[in-house]
Amino acid sequence: MKNNLWPYSTPGIPDQLFIRGQIPMTKEEVRTVTLAKARPAPGQIIWDVGAGTGSLSVEAARLIADGTVFAVEKDPRGIALIQNNLRKFGLDNIVPVAGEAPAALTDLPAPHRVFIGGSGGRLAEILEQVMHRLRYDGRIVANAATLETAAGLAAPRPGWRCELVQLQVSRAVPAGKAHMWRALNPVCIITLVRERE
Amino acid sequence: MKNNLWPYSTPGIPDQLFIRGQIPMTKEEVRTVTLAKARPAPGQIIWDVGAGTGSLSVEAARLIADGTVFAVEKDPRGIALIQNNLRKFGLDNIVPVAGEAPAALTDLPAPHRVFIGGSGGRLAEILEQVMHRLRYDGRIVANAATLETAAGLAAPRPGWRCELVQLQVSRAVPAGKAHMWRALNPVCIITLVRERE
Amino acid sequence: MKNNLWPYSTPGIPDQLFIRGQIPMTKEEVRTVTLAKARPAPGQIIWDVGAGTGSLSVEAARLIADGTVFAVEKDPRGIALIQNNLRKFGLDNIVPVAGEAPAALTDLPAPHRVFIGGSGGRLAEILEQVMHRLRYDGRIVANAATLETAAGLAAPRPGWRCELVQLQVSRAVPAGKAHMWRALNPVCIITLVRERE
Amino acid sequence: MKNNLWPYSTPGIPDQLFIRGQIPMTKEEVRTVTLAKARPAPGQIIWDVGAGTGSLSVEAARLIADGTVFAVEKDPRGIALIQNNLRKFGLDNIVPVAGEAPAALTDLPAPHRVFIGGSGGRLAEILEQVMHRLRYDGRIVANAATLETAAGLAAPRPGWRCELVQLQVSRAVPAGKAHMWRALNPVCIITLVRERE
Repeated sequence: MKNNLWPYSTPGIPDQLFIRGQIPMTKEEVRTVTLAKARPAPGQIIWDVGAGTGSLSVEAARLIADGTVFAVEKDPRGIALIQNNLRKFGLDNIVPVAGEAPAALTDLPAPHRVFIGGSGGRLAEILEQVMHRLRYDGRIVANAATLETAAGLAAPRPGWRCELVQLQVSRAVPAGKAHMWRALNPVCIITLVRERE
Repeated sequence: MKNNLWPYSTPGIPDQLFIRGQIPMTKEEVRTVTLAKARPAPGQIIWDVGAGTGSLSVEAARLIADGTVFAVEKDPRGIALIQNNLRKFGLDNIVPVAGEAPAALTDLPAPHRVFIGGSGGRLAEILEQVMHRLRYDGRIVANAATLETAAGLAAPRPGWRCELVQLQVSRAVPAGKAHMWRALNPVCIITLVRERE
Repeated sequence: MKNNLWPYSTPGIPDQLFIRGQIPMTKEEVRTVTLAKARPAPGQIIWDVGAGTGSLSVEAARLIADGTVFAVEKDPRGIALIQNNLRKFGLDNIVPVAGEAPAALTDLPAPHRVFIGGSGGRLAEILEQVMHRLRYDGRIVANAATLETAAGLAAPRPGWRCELVQLQVSRAVPAGKAHMWRALNPVCIITLVRERE
Repeated sequence: MKNNLWPYSTPGIPDQLFIRGQIPMTKEEVRTVTLAKARPAPGQIIWDVGAGTGSLSVEAARLIADGTVFAVEKDPRGIALIQNNLRKFGLDNIVPVAGEAPAALTDLPAPHRVFIGGSGGRLAEILEQVMHRLRYDGRIVANAATLETAAGLAAPRPGWRCELVQLQVSRAVPAGKAHMWRALNPVCIITLVRERE
C-alpha cells in the first residue's frame, strides 16, 4: 500500500504533499495524533466522515493493508480532491462516497474505526448512526474546531467512554535569523469507545 | 515485531501501559508526533539518546521491522526500565546502551534516525557527534522542555535545515459530570535534516 | 484604597502575596485578563460569585474606589481566607457573603459587574439570577475550567452577546542554567453583555 | 488622564478601538498582561521601545497620571499612528520619539519602567542601554514573538532576575450557532528586575 511518495511507517505526511484546493485541511500534527488515537490495524473498515481533501483517508489507508477507507464527503470539490490524492499516493483501498452523512453511511459495511472531521451541523444524527453501526471493539475519533462540537461529543452517553484531548500546535517560521511562532488553531480530539464490563 | 499488547499500525501507546518508575516520560501525544517527525521505516538504525523509560524506543522498534533501536541512557534505573519495557512489549530489536552521550555513541553503527530526549547539559557535544555520524538522508528529532535547549537546537547550522514545532496538549479529566482541562507542559519538537542542493 | 502592599495601578498581584490555604486560586495572569474583561470603574457594585480565596475580589476592590465588592462563597474556609486577605491588603470595600448562590445573591444590591468563578453545579440558576439583576450596561465575566461550563456560558441567549477567550499560560521555572516550561491549566474567560439596539 | 473613550480602571482596550494602519499590534490580552507585569504607578517615566501603533503607550499613559510615556519608534508610519492614537484617547502625557533604539534613548530621562516590543535586531545593545539607565526599583518588560528573542532576554545576567511567561490566547469567533477557536500567535513576556540583597 506504500508508494515512493511516502515510504515511512508512520502518519505525518507534510501538508504540502496533498492536493488541497480551497477546502480546509486538518494539519499534519493534528492528523498524526488523530490517527494514533484511532489505533488503525490491517484489515479494518474505516469511515472518514467529512473527509474534506482526503488527507486523513490517505494516511489511514496506508496503515491498514487490505482494509478499506470509505471517504464520505458532500462537497463535490472534496470528492475530486480525494480522488486526486488517492491517485497521487497510489492507493487503491480508498472508496470516495459522494453524499451527506448520515444518509450516505447507510449502505457502507460496519466500521472498525470512524473519523468524524465535519458534521455539517448534523452531529447528533451522525453520531447516533455511527454508534449504532460501529463494531464491538470499535473506536470513533472526532476532531472539533468549535466549543459546541467538542461539548456535544463529550456529552455523557451510557455505555460509552470518552477521551478528550486539546492540541495546540505552533510552528516556528524563519524571520531573518530568528524563528517566529505561528499558532495553528486549537483542535479537540475526542475518542469514543464502548465501556467494557 | 508487533505483539498482542499493541497490535496497531501507529505509535500512540497509552502512557500507563509502560513500566515507568520515577523517571519522567514523554507523554503519548508528544511521543506520537515526535515519532512521526522522524519518519521511521523498516531496516533503519535508530539512536534514542536519553532514552529514559524507553517508551520512544519501544514505539520506534515496532515500526522498523528488522531495524534496530539503540537506547542510550546513563541512569541505571532507566536501563532497567528499558529492559522491562522491551520485554513487556516482546521486542527483540532494542539494544539498551548504558552510558553517557556523546561517549556512549562512539561504537554504535551510523544511524538513519536519532532521537534526542535528554542531553544532561551536553547538548552541543552530543549534537556534534550525532550530526557527524548521521547517514546522508538521516533525520534528528529532539524534544526540548526548556527554552534554552530549544534555542540551542534551532541555532543556524550551515548545511542543515531545522523545523520547529511547539506542542501544547491538554487532557480533559472527569470532574463530576464535566471534563476539567489539565495541561501537559509544552514541548518543542525540533527536526534537523541536511539541506539538499 | 491602595496600600503599601500593592501600590500599583493595575491588577496582577503575584499569587504568593495572597493567603491561600487549600482552596484553588485563579492564577495571576488569568486574574489579570479576567479583571480587564470586566472593565471595572470607580463606584461600581461588583459581585464575585464563588470568590474562593478572594484574590479576584481584592484586585477588583483596589480599582473601584468607593465601589463595593460582594464576595460570595459557600465554603467557610473561603470566607476566612477572604477576611484575611482583605485585611492583609487593607481594603474596607469588600463584603464577604457566606452562603450559596443563587440564594445568597437575593439581598445584594444590583451589580454593575459580576464575576463567576465557581458555580457548584448550579450555573444555570446562578446565571438566570445574575442576568436578571445586572444593571443595564453591566458585564458578566466568568472563568470556566471545564468544557461543559464554557459551553453552558456560551449558549445562545436572545438579547445577549458573548465573548469567549481561552488563555493558556506557561511559566518558565529555573532548571539549572535553563528555564523549563510549566503549563498552567487552560481557562476559558467568557464575557456576557446585553446587545445594544 | 481618562477620557470618555475608555473610562475604566484597567488596561484591556479592545484592539479595534486603536487606529492601526499596516503595523502589527500587540493583542488586547497580551497587552493587558504585559502592562500588569510592568506594575505601572502614578508619576513614573516609561519608555516604550518599538512602540508600533502606540497601543501599549496609550494603555500605560492612562495609568500613570502625571507620569510620562516616551514612545520610541523608528518607522515614521508608526510615529503618525502614535500621534493619532494619543489624540483619539485624549492623552497629553505621551511623547512620540522618532528614531532608532538604542541611539534614540540617550537623551530621555531615566525610566522607572521599560517596555520592549520590537528591537529591530539590536536587542543586545538596547538591553545594555536600558539596564544601564533603569532606575533602581525599575522593571523591564519585553514581548518576544520569536524563540531567539525570548532566549536572548532570558540569558543569565549577574545581578538581574528574570521572569518568563508564555501566553497562548485563542478567541472563539461565531460560526453559525457555534464558536470556532482562532489562535493568536504565542508570545513570551519576559520581566527583568534587579536582584535585591
